[in-house]
Amino acid sequence: MHLFIGQKQDDGLFGLTTEESHHCIRVTRHKPGDFVMVTDFKGEIWKTIILDQNGDQVICKPLEIYKREMSIGGKIHIAISLTQQSDRFEWFLEKAVETGIDTITPMVSQRTENRRDKPERWSKIIIAAAKQTLRARLPDLQPIQNLEHILKTNQIEQRFICHCENGTEGFLGKLYNPTQDILVLIGPEGDFTKPEIELCQSHKFIPVHLGELRLRTETAGLTACIILQTLKNCL
Amino acid sequence: MHLFIGQKQDDGLFGLTTEESHHCIRVTRHKPGDFVMVTDFKGEIWKTIILDQNGDQVICKPLEIYKREMSIGGKIHIAISLTQQSDRFEWFLEKAVETGIDTITPMVSQRTENRRDKPERWSKIIIAAAKQTLRARLPDLQPIQNLEHILKTNQIEQRFICHCENGTEGFLGKLYNPTQDILVLIGPEGDFTKPEIELCQSHKFIPVHLGELRLRTETAGLTACIILQTLKNCL
Repeated sequence: MHLFIGQKQDDGLFGLTTEESHHCIRVTRHKPGDFVMVTDFKGEIWKTIILDQNGDQVICKPLEIYKREMSIGGKIHIAISLTQQSDRFEWFLEKAVETGIDTITPMVSQRTENRRDKPERWSKIIIAAAKQTLRARLPDLQPIQNLEHILKTNQIEQRFICHCENGTEGFLGKLYNPTQDILVLIGPEGDFTKPEIELCQSHKFIPVHLGELRLRTETAGLTACIILQTLKNCL
Repeated sequence: MHLFIGQKQDDGLFGLTTEESHHCIRVTRHKPGDFVMVTDFKGEIWKTIILDQNGDQVICKPLEIYKREMSIGGKIHIAISLTQQSDRFEWFLEKAVETGIDTITPMVSQRTENRRDKPERWSKIIIAAAKQTLRARLPDLQPIQNLEHILKTNQIEQRFICHCENGTEGFLGKLYNPTQDILVLIGPEGDFTKPEIELCQSHKFIPVHLGELRLRTETAGLTACIILQTLKNCL
């Protein structure tokens, strides 16, 4: 069954957004009487029946809750360097949404080469992945930020920086407390510089690794996300 | 430093394979006196110096071991359905190698639509990913197999089937014992059929899920791989 995005109206019915109404009628070719799923991304997905088309807007009557998103454990925030090839960053976005990330910050650090900002395209990828994977809440996409800005503005309980140099304090999964919020920094191709790592440590970011193997930026970001999610699921 | 594939000769030197020699000289433009890393994928990566080109073959002298691959815990074997879009399966191959898989079996089950066999292309992707991520052992790529054949021929200690239906016994990560070998089955778009799930159960495969969210085939395969690797790394 397809998932569409809508807003709950005062009368208790869901009105799909204009874009979603179009998609529902023209692309997936639904008609009044069809069952579809609807979410407003506020934590619930409803099984609904299409009542009518009010002009260009599809109106759905909620029948029962299909899914209520539980928030077990802390929230996962990953700040990740943009990658040289844009498609690799976009791939990270899609997969991070599919595997349960809460907040994504596209980051620029010293060795980040590609700095192109594509907030609209990225939002579309995030929404498509959230629909595909039946998420009842939309992850938060922050604006692009410099590493320094991230360090100054985030006071999340657990703060980690992943890098490939010697001198980490161990495997991310071993140091993570899944009951608390977490922010993890993932560097660019060529990694963070030593001064950057020291700067992060002075802001109480703990240096960690993600295992024995050398990972590309986007694989590292996704691996971090799944490591954290695994330990939350084991709670 | 680049990683190349070579064989240790009787005189203790490494001779790069023909393809790797070509890559070393023509593409990355290395010369005698350059330092490069070499592995025979038997568990070690060596730091070496290029001595000479013996005709078309590059000869390297090992200086010190750069990395010896430890085998902590059991081996990870994932049998995963081919995907409708080939690039999604190939993406799984690349990422599974980067995150430490030991054995991959491309699988055909009832709802698998794409059955195109591309062993040479897949091997190339696996080798490229192993080099990129500095793996000292090459994961094993099995030939395409039907689900029934996999069930009959595998007696690995821990056997799991991931599916999205109700009635799983819980989260893969909670049931996994990272000290033992494991085989995990990942179904196609549209999932395994109910009779297939029952057949797997009769072969002592335990039905599990990978978390709350609905995952695409290739994301499910990679997620399973990282879940298992996370718990091995926490040993």
